[in-house]
Amino acid sequence: MPQQSQTSPSLVFPAGDYRNRTERLQASMAGAGIDALLLTQPADVFYVTGFLTRFWESPARPWFIVVPATGDPVAVIPAIGAELMGRCWLRDIRTWPAPDPRDDGLSLLTTTLGDVVPPGGCIGLPMGLETHLRMPLADYTALQEALAPRRFADATACVQRVREIKSEAEIDCIRRSCTLAGRAFDRVPEFALPGRPLEAVFRDFQIALLQEGADWVSYVAGGAGPDGYGDVISPAGPVPLQRGDLLMLDTGAVKDGYFCDFDRNYAIGPATEPMRRAHHALWQATEEAMAALRPGLRACDLHRLLSTALERHGVTPLSGRLGHGLGVTLTEWPSLTPLDETELRAGMVLTLEPGCETRDGAIMVHEENIVLRDTRVELLSPRAPETLPEIGA
Amino acid sequence: MPQQSQTSPSLVFPAGDYRNRTERLQASMAGAGIDALLLTQPADVFYVTGFLTRFWESPARPWFIVVPATGDPVAVIPAIGAELMGRCWLRDIRTWPAPDPRDDGLSLLTTTLGDVVPPGGCIGLPMGLETHLRMPLADYTALQEALAPRRFADATACVQRVREIKSEAEIDCIRRSCTLAGRAFDRVPEFALPGRPLEAVFRDFQIALLQEGADWVSYVAGGAGPDGYGDVISPAGPVPLQRGDLLMLDTGAVKDGYFCDFDRNYAIGPATEPMRRAHHALWQATEEAMAALRPGLRACDLHRLLSTALERHGVTPLSGRLGHGLGVTLTEWPSLTPLDETELRAGMVLTLEPGCETRDGAIMVHEENIVLRDTRVELLSPRAPETLPEIGA
Repeated sequence: MPQQSQTSPSLVFPAGDYRNRTERLQASMAGAGIDALLLTQPADVFYVTGFLTRFWESPARPWFIVVPATGDPVAVIPAIGAELMGRCWLRDIRTWPAPDPRDDGLSLLTTTLGDVVPPGGCIGLPMGLETHLRMPLADYTALQEALAPRRFADATACVQRVREIKSEAEIDCIRRSCTLAGRAFDRVPEFALPGRPLEAVFRDFQIALLQEGADWVSYVAGGAGPDGYGDVISPAGPVPLQRGDLLMLDTGAVKDGYFCDFDRNYAIGPATEPMRRAHHALWQATEEAMAALRPGLRACDLHRLLSTALERHGVTPLSGRLGHGLGVTLTEWPSLTPLDETELRAGMVLTLEPGCETRDGAIMVHEENIVLRDTRVELLSPRAPETLPEIGA
Repeated sequence: MPQQSQTSPSLVFPAGDYRNRTERLQASMAGAGIDALLLTQPADVFYVTGFLTRFWESPARPWFIVVPATGDPVAVIPAIGAELMGRCWLRDIRTWPAPDPRDDGLSLLTTTLGDVVPPGGCIGLPMGLETHLRMPLADYTALQEALAPRRFADATACVQRVREIKSEAEIDCIRRSCTLAGRAFDRVPEFALPGRPLEAVFRDFQIALLQEGADWVSYVAGGAGPDGYGDVISPAGPVPLQRGDLLMLDTGAVKDGYFCDFDRNYAIGPATEPMRRAHHALWQATEEAMAALRPGLRACDLHRLLSTALERHGVTPLSGRLGHGLGVTLTEWPSLTPLDETELRAGMVLTLEPGCETRDGAIMVHEENIVLRDTRVELLSPRAPETLPEIGA
């Protein structure tokens, strides 16, 4: 763990790391003709400032980071965040007593942007795929009017091309998250016993993740059913596990603000033939994709690697994406689909998530986390066993 | 727990409850001249449909619910959600293979809205305080153009006046969440011992919440320091608890999709005089506000009740809000500030959250959850003890 976190829990990395990120963003902005970047999403704010809090769970207040063309970013934030932001590296922190129904930071933000962007200038804001505007839409409209003739332009690519290349320190964080989740997965056979309701298994799995060192558990999903499950995003119900079920648990556990995102499958009782066949195909397809993956391929190429491998091993790939980026949120771009042409570059952290039907109406999904290196793929999650684990067999 | 959740984890309440909510929204829409409501935020989607998932943690895909002037809502959602949404009450579920960089549900949403809103009509969208647009901004701009001459109008009040009045079934959910959190708070003296790092205490507290029945723990914050803490939104660091510290833990634990949000304070070792004085004032101010609160008062009136009581008991109120709404998210409107004139009505669930300085640079915050009834206040959280608990004294 970086030294700073010993005294400043809000500053995960040394200030120099954030300055470096800022400079990379500024180079990207310069290339796109953007005079200042306006960031409103939790992940973007954390990325630039190190401001780590679970308070995003409250939708009451907007938070703004302004990245000027040169120099340090400015935080324009609710007063409740001043103390914590003050422990991060930014020195220019402007606050207002939010929520204020008359003016919820808007005049402060207008002044801040107006000072760093000339009247003919351009303000970049992520507006594209996989982005949201985390502020009231009416306030954004008012902001546009107040800052005219300055214009707003889409800065999605500008942010994504920077954030998607992880530093070694970031990769270490993700690896730690993967490692602790791996230990929790190893303990699943202790509590995912036949007869136990799935909701109890989910609860015990979250407890295991915390016991193994997660700061918090932002995501647990899964499923269980005969030979396979119905979907991968449902909460748990009270139905008990039964022999013949395939159980899947999937988690996004968080360590120092960084996520893992991988799943594991378990046969309850002896693995059935449909489970074995699917697991073999998914495991092999992952193995083959990892062996073939190199920088310079595109997201769609990696999708093709995975899907053709699945077909070669006798199963039909699921129609959704077969993996995605990973880091400061549970899922990041790119998406491993036939349509995503994002170039895969060294330093990108990805999930490989091939899935297939085990039989009509039942599926199995297999997931690993990797970082793409110059000449190879490095696993961040402990590799799933080649043979499907059996519980209570 | 409502019977339906025994077989359908995605449908927390009977379908009739959701139909009733829809009809209340539609009455509110009619009063505002809105022909259809477009909902994009997780809480609004869950409120109308019962679609309960932690998958919102992935920002990759937008989700849309269209509430027409009459009849059932329509779900326009990524294909990955079809199975779970199919177990909810809506029957008209339209999906696309998201994320699609060419058209991420936009043409499907355009058709859906175009069919239920006449060309001269109005589409309501929450745009005001405490709302966000959970879809790419560029797609929203394209949607506006595609649907012209239909216009978009702010539907914040339209949604908030409906959602803020909780049904008895919703109140039961919040009460269950409060009750389980109360049991976890009772166990804090077992693990918040002098010498233990705050991050270990946070971890154990989350484990206790899960063991006591939380489905998941969306929020834990807190602080510790001599006589008081510095802020209330920070993550935990490695600093060990010491005698003379005031420890606060705050949680938003989730049960069936509904939150509690309250905190508890503990003296580590014997309570100091500044702690005792602040705790007494905060406890008494809460008691007096609960005795005086009735429907018809406004949020700003309740703020005044709390702040004048604090002053009467010899402490200075913190400048931020002193409470807020609660339910499907950790915090909901209204805000207990001098500026919020929202009328408080029977059926509203609120937090009372008075805070004050204990000494220069250190604070204490006290929090309870209540539901406002016709003639009284009903506590949902187990009342904090009148005397500040001491651990290891």
